[in-house]
Amino acid sequence: MAETLPITDNTRFSRLRKRASYDKAVINQILDAGILCHVGFEDNGHPVVLPTAYVRSQQQLIIHGAANGRFFKCLAEGALCCVTVSHLDGIVLARSAFHHSVNYRCVMLFGRFKALTELNAKRIALDHLMEGCSPGRIDDNIRPASEKELNATAVLMMDITEASAKVRQGPPNDDEKDMDLPVWAGVVQRMPSQYQFISAPDGLASIAQPDYLSKIKF
Amino acid sequence: MAETLPITDNTRFSRLRKRASYDKAVINQILDAGILCHVGFEDNGHPVVLPTAYVRSQQQLIIHGAANGRFFKCLAEGALCCVTVSHLDGIVLARSAFHHSVNYRCVMLFGRFKALTELNAKRIALDHLMEGCSPGRIDDNIRPASEKELNATAVLMMDITEASAKVRQGPPNDDEKDMDLPVWAGVVQRMPSQYQFISAPDGLASIAQPDYLSKIKF
Repeated sequence: MAETLPITDNTRFSRLRKRASYDKAVINQILDAGILCHVGFEDNGHPVVLPTAYVRSQQQLIIHGAANGRFFKCLAEGALCCVTVSHLDGIVLARSAFHHSVNYRCVMLFGRFKALTELNAKRIALDHLMEGCSPGRIDDNIRPASEKELNATAVLMMDITEASAKVRQGPPNDDEKDMDLPVWAGVVQRMPSQYQFISAPDGLASIAQPDYLSKIKF
Repeated sequence: MAETLPITDNTRFSRLRKRASYDKAVINQILDAGILCHVGFEDNGHPVVLPTAYVRSQQQLIIHGAANGRFFKCLAEGALCCVTVSHLDGIVLARSAFHHSVNYRCVMLFGRFKALTELNAKRIALDHLMEGCSPGRIDDNIRPASEKELNATAVLMMDITEASAKVRQGPPNDDEKDMDLPVWAGVVQRMPSQYQFISAPDGLASIAQPDYLSKIKF
């Protein structure tokens, strides 16, 4: 049986019930397929949705930002958060306007971030983030962060304990009575992304494009 | 001079200041380049970030959902919202760990949604949404929504009055002292998406794939 994350308060997931999953493997797969999350929290009575890079490391989510930034200060202080990761996979074209839909995979996490303070812990977490966004990069000849740079960087972790996935895949679900309408039905599916590698204009001509760039996916 | 949206309360944008723009043309361009937004609001004391399809119609944002869904009820009741639209365009690989970054375009909107109640107004707004997600589809032989279906659908609009865009594009900004490090620097840029058209398995064999499918972008 699939391992299930302990959901402490299920009531807020009511909208998600129909296509919801609390299966840890499903949740981790969706998280690991992206690097951009949307962090929702309240700042001085106003909701904010902040797009930012993340990585999952075991059962924790890692994000980072400018330590003196207003939003990251808010998060570091333990604001209650909802973190959503969404992949829009396709547009579902049905025979009726009503049954048009989208194919997607998304995860919502609920909890609070904790700010790392110890420099070595920050460095390790940032290495995870680098590995998540650009596998292999950390082992290349980049200059590691200085103590000053680490101090200027807020590194935040959230335990992945309260989580829910929601997925829709597959063809349209049309009403029986609409099946003979003279209209194409199906899915417009996004193909895996392709990338272009643009060398910095001030880069050294002697440096070849490294092979690990081909592992980048976002 | 570019027209600027009236920003009523600027203070919450502090994090965005460096790369922020209040230029209406920039904001509209970013909004029009996507169909997926993340709507942040508070539900019973808990922040929620809801991914959902949208379209911009003039200076309004239109979304829709199940009328009996918990989250859409919350939004229809006028919950204060932050709507974020993000495009992740590239990964920026710098010579130092610290200057790694991402290229992106994002918009944050603040305000409240209003629920449309009049059936014809709902129909028009849903047609806009259909046209935004799948241009040309509405003129094909799909069955229009019935009154019952319209009643089951919450159609919400938000005035785009308080908005901010944030953009990063271009090569890494490295420190002068790192320029001679023997490491590739540049940008891994996502190419425009390609799509696959998958006919519904129960579709009529006589129906050809319509040309307007090529206009879909997401």
